[in-house]
Amino acid sequence: MCNILKQNERIDDLQYRGYKIIQNPKEFCFGVDAVLLANFPKVKKGDIVVDFGTGSGIIPILIYAKTGAKEIIGFEIQGYMADMANRSVKLNNITEGVRIINDDLKNWKDYILPSSCDIITCNPPYKDMGTAIINPKDSMAIARHEIACNLEDIISNASKLLKFNGKLCIVHRPQRLADIFCLMRKYKIEPKRLRFVHPNTKKPPSMVLIEGARSGSTELRVSEPLFIYDEDGKYSKEIDDIYDRDLSI
Amino acid sequence: MCNILKQNERIDDLQYRGYKIIQNPKEFCFGVDAVLLANFPKVKKGDIVVDFGTGSGIIPILIYAKTGAKEIIGFEIQGYMADMANRSVKLNNITEGVRIINDDLKNWKDYILPSSCDIITCNPPYKDMGTAIINPKDSMAIARHEIACNLEDIISNASKLLKFNGKLCIVHRPQRLADIFCLMRKYKIEPKRLRFVHPNTKKPPSMVLIEGARSGSTELRVSEPLFIYDEDGKYSKEIDDIYDRDLSI
Repeated sequence: MCNILKQNERIDDLQYRGYKIIQNPKEFCFGVDAVLLANFPKVKKGDIVVDFGTGSGIIPILIYAKTGAKEIIGFEIQGYMADMANRSVKLNNITEGVRIINDDLKNWKDYILPSSCDIITCNPPYKDMGTAIINPKDSMAIARHEIACNLEDIISNASKLLKFNGKLCIVHRPQRLADIFCLMRKYKIEPKRLRFVHPNTKKPPSMVLIEGARSGSTELRVSEPLFIYDEDGKYSKEIDDIYDRDLSI
Repeated sequence: MCNILKQNERIDDLQYRGYKIIQNPKEFCFGVDAVLLANFPKVKKGDIVVDFGTGSGIIPILIYAKTGAKEIIGFEIQGYMADMANRSVKLNNITEGVRIINDDLKNWKDYILPSSCDIITCNPPYKDMGTAIINPKDSMAIARHEIACNLEDIISNASKLLKFNGKLCIVHRPQRLADIFCLMRKYKIEPKRLRFVHPNTKKPPSMVLIEGARSGSTELRVSEPLFIYDEDGKYSKEIDDIYDRDLSI
């Protein structure tokens, strides 16, 4: 096991059928947003799934663990993160189903055919470049700010890669909702499903989950809110269920 | 009092400082959506407010009752509804502050200058004309379907009528959110504030309140959810407060 870990890395148990992930707390560890996003798309048996900006590989690993997807391809621009994600894929013995590609997501055509993908997931950098003072070589900054790609890159590339009626699923800050909707429409991805995630019943949403369909009809459904904590400050039953949920049935 | 009422009409007490409204249950009576919309904009003393498609006049009357607005002008295309609204304005002795205009909202230039308005409210017909089988002369249908005007008419006309940074406030079905956002941006009204209204904590939203600012900066704030009923099935405290609230302070 020692060979698989580099400096500052650790193996975290995903508490789901023995799946594990390598993380480096000095870089970027996944949060509840990644778990919610992995559980958001309705993945069917045999689906081809692509994850843009896969980081540690948490979303491909969870989707592989929980659904009947045939193949999940994660694009990660940062060499160190892609290497760590690849080691997690090997650690879980799922190299037949999960492929990590160390490249800019904008180069997807070098690896996969246009209009071939059933589902694209993306947990993008939340912060735009407007006012940020950041180091563009900092891997934490790349995961958090729109340095390597922005929303328009994600949505325009997803539009070309998705099959007809294929789904793009994004988790983002609610503040970006108008940007996301307008860019989706610009690139012929119709917003279809929206779910806000609130810390509790009294707070504004801290995240939003959005599903758009390539060339879909105009029919947006806003779901009931998802509350992370209940009145006692403990994880809500739904969050507990999501962490445990098997989506392959 | 008899002279002021026509067939099937009644006077309803608005339970707020003695204000009243004439309604005809055979036509269209206001609902909680109108009350929530009237309480949504931040009306300042001296503001000029326009209500597009004012129906019974409920929104101008509530805003006049609750805020320091200087003048509130309600456009209503249906002659009978505009007449009833006018009688309500007289009944409340507020003709100095509330003006009901029986005309298509698209003719606003005949009555008020461009870029002169601080706030525009609109509780538009919720249903688009896609699949509906309706009688276009039916007043109930005009209030509910996009016969006399559609969302683009409302937003494009609001854009011309609003001052710089003036606010357009709409209540609508959540299903139309992407349409509203994209049309607002098309006509240079930036979505700034969003609040979903849910029957209770477990249900999807049944309505959404949206505020956009003419030529505003990109900064959307999604508020905490508004729940109509509490766990016991009674009106929530916030709904009770909204019905009683004085917004002029």
